[in-house]
Amino acid sequence: MKHIIFIAISTLFSLNAAANRINNEPIKIIKPASGLNTDLVNLGKKLWFDPRLSKSNAISCNSCHNLATGGVDNLASSIGHQWTIGPINSPTVLNAELNFVQFWNGRAKNLKAQASGPIDNPKEMAFTHTLAVDTINSIPQYKKMFNQIFDSNEISIDEIATAIAEFEKTLRTPNAPFDLWLQGDETALNKIEKEGYALFKQKGCTSCHHGPLVGGTMYQKMGLVKPFETKNADIGRAAITGKESDKFLFKVPGLRNVALTYPYFHDGSIWDLKQAVTIMADIQLGQTLTDDESTKITKFLNTLTGEQPKIVLPQLPISTKNTPKPIML
Amino acid sequence: MKHIIFIAISTLFSLNAAANRINNEPIKIIKPASGLNTDLVNLGKKLWFDPRLSKSNAISCNSCHNLATGGVDNLASSIGHQWTIGPINSPTVLNAELNFVQFWNGRAKNLKAQASGPIDNPKEMAFTHTLAVDTINSIPQYKKMFNQIFDSNEISIDEIATAIAEFEKTLRTPNAPFDLWLQGDETALNKIEKEGYALFKQKGCTSCHHGPLVGGTMYQKMGLVKPFETKNADIGRAAITGKESDKFLFKVPGLRNVALTYPYFHDGSIWDLKQAVTIMADIQLGQTLTDDESTKITKFLNTLTGEQPKIVLPQLPISTKNTPKPIML
Repeated sequence: MKHIIFIAISTLFSLNAAANRINNEPIKIIKPASGLNTDLVNLGKKLWFDPRLSKSNAISCNSCHNLATGGVDNLASSIGHQWTIGPINSPTVLNAELNFVQFWNGRAKNLKAQASGPIDNPKEMAFTHTLAVDTINSIPQYKKMFNQIFDSNEISIDEIATAIAEFEKTLRTPNAPFDLWLQGDETALNKIEKEGYALFKQKGCTSCHHGPLVGGTMYQKMGLVKPFETKNADIGRAAITGKESDKFLFKVPGLRNVALTYPYFHDGSIWDLKQAVTIMADIQLGQTLTDDESTKITKFLNTLTGEQPKIVLPQLPISTKNTPKPIML
Repeated sequence: MKHIIFIAISTLFSLNAAANRINNEPIKIIKPASGLNTDLVNLGKKLWFDPRLSKSNAISCNSCHNLATGGVDNLASSIGHQWTIGPINSPTVLNAELNFVQFWNGRAKNLKAQASGPIDNPKEMAFTHTLAVDTINSIPQYKKMFNQIFDSNEISIDEIATAIAEFEKTLRTPNAPFDLWLQGDETALNKIEKEGYALFKQKGCTSCHHGPLVGGTMYQKMGLVKPFETKNADIGRAAITGKESDKFLFKVPGLRNVALTYPYFHDGSIWDLKQAVTIMADIQLGQTLTDDESTKITKFLNTLTGEQPKIVLPQLPISTKNTPKPIML
């Protein structure tokens, strides 16, 4: 009887601790995707992997946001049409829906607004929206799928973007060790990882890196306390607003799966996560971390790697005589 | 009772027909892969999708042999390092183990001998075998897998190629309508498709296109009866043997999944399958096909599309400080 009471009390305690953590911690749980349109997801998945959305027919969404490698390409910046080196590091698509805006400079308000951008960016897929639509429209299996889903005879770039965005919404990574701990599993984090998280809060990292994404809720100046030294020419949010005060303001990147998404920062200049932590503390918070502190925070960040989406490669419908031919040069 | 006897006789008849077809038809069934080493397959699958086997870290085996599109890239010739346009059309990896030699000119005797070729080809992945080995060796999860499988401490390019080849051996496409028909299912082909197959034999196509791959058993001169007009500079088998008589000899490509593997011929110049059929009959067999004959043969060729391999995208192990950095330019 005593034993049962003890278990009951400790269960209550742990349920209480879990409720407290979920409510009070600045980092929130990543939930699996739900309520999505399955047909639209399946269509979007085909389009995601379809290189025919690029001028060369050689670049798909997955080329730069590779779902085998954390939704990124692990390059400082991506390679686009005719081997053009992109101007900025490709952010991960994992959990990307949870960002308050899309792109580093926030120029798209949501995934759908983002999805059509790379298709006609001359440095990326280098196509035109018209040709992308013509391509998809020339493929009977696609045409049928669009017809059934959107109940219209004319495929549009808007519908293409809607489908890709719906697929991207499935790309959640729940059940990271940190999330299990948030839900009350004491053993999900070890002592060092818990100390790392305590330091992460104590040093002020959570002032920007909070919420389910551990970021992605605001813009912040890169080099808030000390200037960030980079060869990258991007001026951040100012390119959109034209405001001097928005110079070098970027969306705070989420840190979910950060162990997978090297190299770091908008210029992709730092390959080592611990070094990235040290630099951030220095230039954003004016804090000089000890080696031990950087190590612990890094170990905590490693606990943000969740279950990766299980992706069965789609089979793409074949082209027809009417499909525009690839233009490689 | 009469009814039962009738069923028994027709079953016997159909079993007999199936046995006859399997034994007597020049095209043989594609069987699913069997007897493979699962650990080696899983390792090979990761390597297959790993762009770190290329100098830029942007090109994987799957870039040019895309398993979402029939094991090819549907380009006249592939795009390699720094947007180099390759010299020849990328053949499919589906069922590729069944080819008597690998590459168009047969310079590799099997999949393993082939697999390491693109890695250090300056026009393809442009790496060196030494750097590829260093890369894989710098990644603990890979090191562990190699260790367990090969029981040695030193990863070699030979082991990398062995693993990739083992994965490729899984890429069979059984149960094409034609194979079901070969096995006695009368309804698997319609009247036109059966007529197409009869024409395929009658016109002499099976003299080269036979066996389980419907090809891949011999070399043949491209332009046997009339010269093949092409801008492609490849001289075929002669580049390997140095023999004048081997000029323009290429491995006869298999026609399995040919509906998916456009564009056609070693120069990738023809996008339409029916047109390819007409040209082949003309320049290889000296036969002028009617439009109706080309249509029927093409419809038969469409029945060679089998069940595509179900590929779950692997999660690639992360790089470390010791992993060589990508060299994009």
